[in-house]
Amino acid sequence: MTKIAFLGLGIMGRPMANHLQAAGHDLFVVQHQSSLPQELLDGGAVECSTAAEAASRSEFVITMVPDTPDVEEVLFRSEGVAEGLKAGTTLIDMSSISPIETKIFAERIAEKECAYLDAPVSGGEVGAKSASLTIMVGGSGETFERAHPLLALMGTNITLVGDVGAGQACKVANQIIVALTIEAVGEALLFASKAGVDPVKVREALMGGFAGSRILEVHGQRMLDRTFEPGFRIALHQKDLSLALQGARALGISLPNAATAQELMNACVAQGWSDLDHSGLVKALETLANHEIA
Amino acid sequence: MTKIAFLGLGIMGRPMANHLQAAGHDLFVVQHQSSLPQELLDGGAVECSTAAEAASRSEFVITMVPDTPDVEEVLFRSEGVAEGLKAGTTLIDMSSISPIETKIFAERIAEKECAYLDAPVSGGEVGAKSASLTIMVGGSGETFERAHPLLALMGTNITLVGDVGAGQACKVANQIIVALTIEAVGEALLFASKAGVDPVKVREALMGGFAGSRILEVHGQRMLDRTFEPGFRIALHQKDLSLALQGARALGISLPNAATAQELMNACVAQGWSDLDHSGLVKALETLANHEIA
Repeated sequence: MTKIAFLGLGIMGRPMANHLQAAGHDLFVVQHQSSLPQELLDGGAVECSTAAEAASRSEFVITMVPDTPDVEEVLFRSEGVAEGLKAGTTLIDMSSISPIETKIFAERIAEKECAYLDAPVSGGEVGAKSASLTIMVGGSGETFERAHPLLALMGTNITLVGDVGAGQACKVANQIIVALTIEAVGEALLFASKAGVDPVKVREALMGGFAGSRILEVHGQRMLDRTFEPGFRIALHQKDLSLALQGARALGISLPNAATAQELMNACVAQGWSDLDHSGLVKALETLANHEIA
Repeated sequence: MTKIAFLGLGIMGRPMANHLQAAGHDLFVVQHQSSLPQELLDGGAVECSTAAEAASRSEFVITMVPDTPDVEEVLFRSEGVAEGLKAGTTLIDMSSISPIETKIFAERIAEKECAYLDAPVSGGEVGAKSASLTIMVGGSGETFERAHPLLALMGTNITLVGDVGAGQACKVANQIIVALTIEAVGEALLFASKAGVDPVKVREALMGGFAGSRILEVHGQRMLDRTFEPGFRIALHQKDLSLALQGARALGISLPNAATAQELMNACVAQGWSDLDHSGLVKALETLANHEIA
């Protein structure tokens, strides 16, 4: 059995840690802002006083925190992971953060003679609970092979996309497509609805053709049913589009529709809809049109 | 067997007419700009001197022409369809045109005591040849039932979406989603590629999740293979987005990403790429970024 420091026990991290523990692995956890999940402690998770201590007692360190600065803090702050790392430890960052900063973090971790994988996920809370996450991995093939048995306890569709940073770049690409497809479905159903056509029938008619997608199927239905409970919150997708647009600027490319989608998400936040499912993006289009599709 | 005037024997109309004739129906056709397909004449199609004559000899009139003004001309010009229509004839416009103008055309046709269906298709030349078109229909249920046996000779996924104009509105919705999903896949693959990640692996990693779509599968592959033979030409999709944006203005709604997608298609036309497949939209993004994804 493997000793694993698991840092970041939120909505996603908690069920992911549960799966690792259920498979018999030994978890090392740290009290942070919120109290530690009782079921993990009952299962034998060891409470450490600092991230450095948890890292020092583990063969793998998994981080699952909200954003780039959170990863930087848990890794490199005083008494953070980097202070405790033994040579040969493998760090797996499963947060969704900047692919560019990821490369810098990996270099700093490499100075400790430790390996680094970026392994962001998609599939949300549902995928985390059912251990069916899609996991997009960047790093060396050797490190990927070593980590794979642990990743396979949390996800089903696990791809080594490329070197360090590639997993995060792939996740950004994923979030661009998901946001823009939601926006596209919103524009299309709004057009049909305002033209006097039943958007339920339009969605049905389009499902079999080239307009068909998981987003039209799932998020299109949410727009029609007005069921905007997350799912995946607008506030988080807004962050992911920020990663896309900051990355685009750094890389020297232009992402015009991602930029507009982020502005529409900003509008959603302005309206108080941060905690709605990202399919609620349609409400920004509806607000502009002064017309609800359903 | 049914007498059918078929007006508009281009890339799409010709194979559609072939299917009707192969099923034993009697076709009435008109010499227009290009010569009539020999196989239709060999099959017994009757050459008429005007659209009015073809309409006067038929129970159904099918139009399949490029754009709104073309439909208006074939229907209402001197010696056009309307001059020849007998009461009780059914007009089926299978062109992709303005849903708003469609309602006006249907009213003018109704004055002749004739029924009107708008029945635009998707599936392109391949779908037309294999009689597997998706057909989105607007009109009365009674007229739809009467026309259905003919439509079923040309397509497989045939939906009555609503009243007259609803088929065209549905087609516009389809074209919005298709264009914006192509654009989304282009932005995502460009981001990954410029970040140094193999876009082939990114496409594979994303196919199973929420970013998955027919467009990512088919058009994403075309972008990677650089195979931009149509398929569906940029010039035609540019026209369809014009219908979306003109419709949006008339209806009082805002379609920000459809507007940007049209501008990118305008850029493609400016570069001489009108006749590329619409997946070639990625080339406009690549031009802005001075970077090709593959």
